[in-house]
Amino acid sequence: MEIIVEKSYNEMSERAFGLIISEILKDKKVNLSLTSGNSPKKTYELLIDYLKNNKKLLSKVDFFNFDNIFLKGESIGDGTKAMNETLYLPAGIDLQKVHSITPDNYLTFDQKISNLGGLDLMLIGLGEDGHFCANMPYATNFLSETYEIPIEKKYSWYQTVLDYIDEAHIPKIMYSMGPRSLMKVKHLVMIVNGKSKAKAVHQFIESEITNSFPSSILKLHPNFTVILDEEAASEITDSSWQRTLTLDG
Amino acid sequence: MEIIVEKSYNEMSERAFGLIISEILKDKKVNLSLTSGNSPKKTYELLIDYLKNNKKLLSKVDFFNFDNIFLKGESIGDGTKAMNETLYLPAGIDLQKVHSITPDNYLTFDQKISNLGGLDLMLIGLGEDGHFCANMPYATNFLSETYEIPIEKKYSWYQTVLDYIDEAHIPKIMYSMGPRSLMKVKHLVMIVNGKSKAKAVHQFIESEITNSFPSSILKLHPNFTVILDEEAASEITDSSWQRTLTLDG
Amino acid sequence: MEIIVEKSYNEMSERAFGLIISEILKDKKVNLSLTSGNSPKKTYELLIDYLKNNKKLLSKVDFFNFDNIFLKGESIGDGTKAMNETLYLPAGIDLQKVHSITPDNYLTFDQKISNLGGLDLMLIGLGEDGHFCANMPYATNFLSETYEIPIEKKYSWYQTVLDYIDEAHIPKIMYSMGPRSLMKVKHLVMIVNGKSKAKAVHQFIESEITNSFPSSILKLHPNFTVILDEEAASEITDSSWQRTLTLDG
Amino acid sequence: MEIIVEKSYNEMSERAFGLIISEILKDKKVNLSLTSGNSPKKTYELLIDYLKNNKKLLSKVDFFNFDNIFLKGESIGDGTKAMNETLYLPAGIDLQKVHSITPDNYLTFDQKISNLGGLDLMLIGLGEDGHFCANMPYATNFLSETYEIPIEKKYSWYQTVLDYIDEAHIPKIMYSMGPRSLMKVKHLVMIVNGKSKAKAVHQFIESEITNSFPSSILKLHPNFTVILDEEAASEITDSSWQRTLTLDG
Repeated sequence: MEIIVEKSYNEMSERAFGLIISEILKDKKVNLSLTSGNSPKKTYELLIDYLKNNKKLLSKVDFFNFDNIFLKGESIGDGTKAMNETLYLPAGIDLQKVHSITPDNYLTFDQKISNLGGLDLMLIGLGEDGHFCANMPYATNFLSETYEIPIEKKYSWYQTVLDYIDEAHIPKIMYSMGPRSLMKVKHLVMIVNGKSKAKAVHQFIESEITNSFPSSILKLHPNFTVILDEEAASEITDSSWQRTLTLDG
Repeated sequence: MEIIVEKSYNEMSERAFGLIISEILKDKKVNLSLTSGNSPKKTYELLIDYLKNNKKLLSKVDFFNFDNIFLKGESIGDGTKAMNETLYLPAGIDLQKVHSITPDNYLTFDQKISNLGGLDLMLIGLGEDGHFCANMPYATNFLSETYEIPIEKKYSWYQTVLDYIDEAHIPKIMYSMGPRSLMKVKHLVMIVNGKSKAKAVHQFIESEITNSFPSSILKLHPNFTVILDEEAASEITDSSWQRTLTLDG
Repeated sequence: MEIIVEKSYNEMSERAFGLIISEILKDKKVNLSLTSGNSPKKTYELLIDYLKNNKKLLSKVDFFNFDNIFLKGESIGDGTKAMNETLYLPAGIDLQKVHSITPDNYLTFDQKISNLGGLDLMLIGLGEDGHFCANMPYATNFLSETYEIPIEKKYSWYQTVLDYIDEAHIPKIMYSMGPRSLMKVKHLVMIVNGKSKAKAVHQFIESEITNSFPSSILKLHPNFTVILDEEAASEITDSSWQRTLTLDG
Repeated sequence: MEIIVEKSYNEMSERAFGLIISEILKDKKVNLSLTSGNSPKKTYELLIDYLKNNKKLLSKVDFFNFDNIFLKGESIGDGTKAMNETLYLPAGIDLQKVHSITPDNYLTFDQKISNLGGLDLMLIGLGEDGHFCANMPYATNFLSETYEIPIEKKYSWYQTVLDYIDEAHIPKIMYSMGPRSLMKVKHLVMIVNGKSKAKAVHQFIESEITNSFPSSILKLHPNFTVILDEEAASEITDSSWQRTLTLDG
């Protein structure tokens, strides 16, 4: 694990942009999996700007959305929608090159990725409750590849779902690439910014592997880069830093 | 995880030999970490035979012993001794190219490996109690690189230690590369043979990630090959196979 | 370049078999490109034997034939036919997983390989005239990926073509992956056996990069293993060995 | 080969900076080889700025200077001096982590690189005469790793040497990593900027492999990225672009 603290959200975003574009500039087929949400917004602005001027690069890139939730009555997942709007359409990415998890393909989604050469880079965020992708507290199966996660009232994070989705439209399950899917990503990158995430970052560093804070498992990843802005890093104590340094290769 | 069942111990050994020698035949510096114990004996016979006729290949290989226990009053670890006798000396390997964990270097052992380019292949066995290297039940730290493991009577496996070491010489700690060390190995290979291991193999496949059966964590490794002989595979049930196949990429 | 001399044809074949099977045993999608001809016959016997007992491994392997010649009036290439007979059909390989060069696809053949993750291993032979695949003396374009090679009487090797093909059926062109295609193969392996190849092996080692001996260009490949039997190695002089050793990494 | 045209020198430099920093942000030991000269000046300003704020990253990076010329009476090479001044000293890089070619070590320089895991990224420029590193027209050995290049009046580029070095101090030889060294670099990056290089860029794209324009050989590299500014790209004709696109993977 390599942890970097950048001064600001802008600098964190430039670094993430640099990592993504550096994969694309290599002389090879590239497979990317990029997160939706607020953290990557600036990263994607930079990416859109760059890709619009370098369209030919896109012909060799495939994109894989790592989670999806199909609201009742909807045929397109929320993850797919969000990524289309935030990145793919504004960047002029051919949607034929975008792969989303569906109820029909989730059992073969990892094989599809593998058949196309594996994921070169995945960009993820960190939830305040320690979730990553849709691997949620107490509902994560550490040994799963892409799988179904039940959405149930018994989970603490159910309330958070209600913040985004009208209860009438909440389905019974959602889909996500699982921890075993992520372990196979060649370069795993997590970006975290803002004061509201500072406690989660501290917990991420301190935590043993536990289902109550699912991203703890990612500390086992063999090539994992974490980019924080100073606010997100603000609750890391000196002893945590010491611990972090030990976790660094 | 890729699981292969070979008909016999000999065929399992030929496969392991093939994997090791194939790394060495590549046109590059090679770093290997190979297990001691009974399982690899035939593999090493084949290896010794081959290397004696191809000495020039050895100049580019470094060997890293993955665990060590220093008996009271001894300055050379038991792991080092065993590997010297079983493999390095008979194969004509220059002991300058062999790296062992010591009380002085264990905190920087992973960095040393990293500085030399990382481990290309590690060959491990499976303990009947689920241990790997010296990562023992209830005493394994899943987030550790090379570390100290306390040897205490409270552990069930203490009795097993007594089978090998006179109690008067048992030290308070031993050393082992940890789960985080192994996750960085480019190709992790486990060989298991014989009826006595059949139950452990079944448990290995069925088990969730748990400290009571430490090798369960290895199922997260992104490039992990398990080679069994038919006896070791004999207690795998049909439903386990189904589960295994799901775990295969 | 790593050059190995094995005592006999059988041992050369075991080594080549080991290299191929070791790729397949990794926990990943695998792309292979294997030569037809006499040299690999024993290698393929071993491979067929192994794969018949391990059919499940085949689901993750794609095969790419690296050259093809369509005799007048034939719709299937000679390279395809030879590989079907020698390896794919006896080994129970699904022909849907076999990719051959055709007049229609040759311009996109390298892109197809790239889209599936690139070639992990290619096994080639060495022609007595220094050719590899269908990259022939004086007719090789060192900067080409898969391309058309004209078959013309002006070339010295035209006579050799006549040994295999009735003149009435010789087409005007044949197809081959080119030097730039091979440079992208992750592990390039060449096997050469028998007295009749001893002079070509010597020339291969001694030669500067030249179109009169096309395989000379392969000495630039970053991960290239050459396996010879003793007969094929018999004309390598001491000074050539010295030169070879310098060429070894 | 992946060729990118950036609008300006600044944007070319940001891209090169992004590629270098992205290597360093991976969770691994990193080996870099970076060019001296004018083209990378802005790249290094960005790099110095970044590394000064992220000193801990430097502990895992080794730097390898790819060529050297020892003026008569000097014990430190010109390449070493230039890199010390332009990059290493201002960036606070420990000179113990910098490796330079000397008359004593040049025969084992590639082995040293290999022993430390190989070069992850090399940044080179393009000479107006087609040279790269110190691989000069008519004096390049395409099959060499690090080697001696004679400096003789018979070469056209001797005049260029006189522009930099007083004739009284010109030595008889200089040292450079050779084409075979570069083929082993995992990611080869070339930056070229300015009108004065436009003709060389055009020639680089058009040229067959020839000793009269040594960088032509690099088109065989399996992972080669070329970053141009618009001025450097200004003499590429439409048909050259077509040719270039064919050369792209």
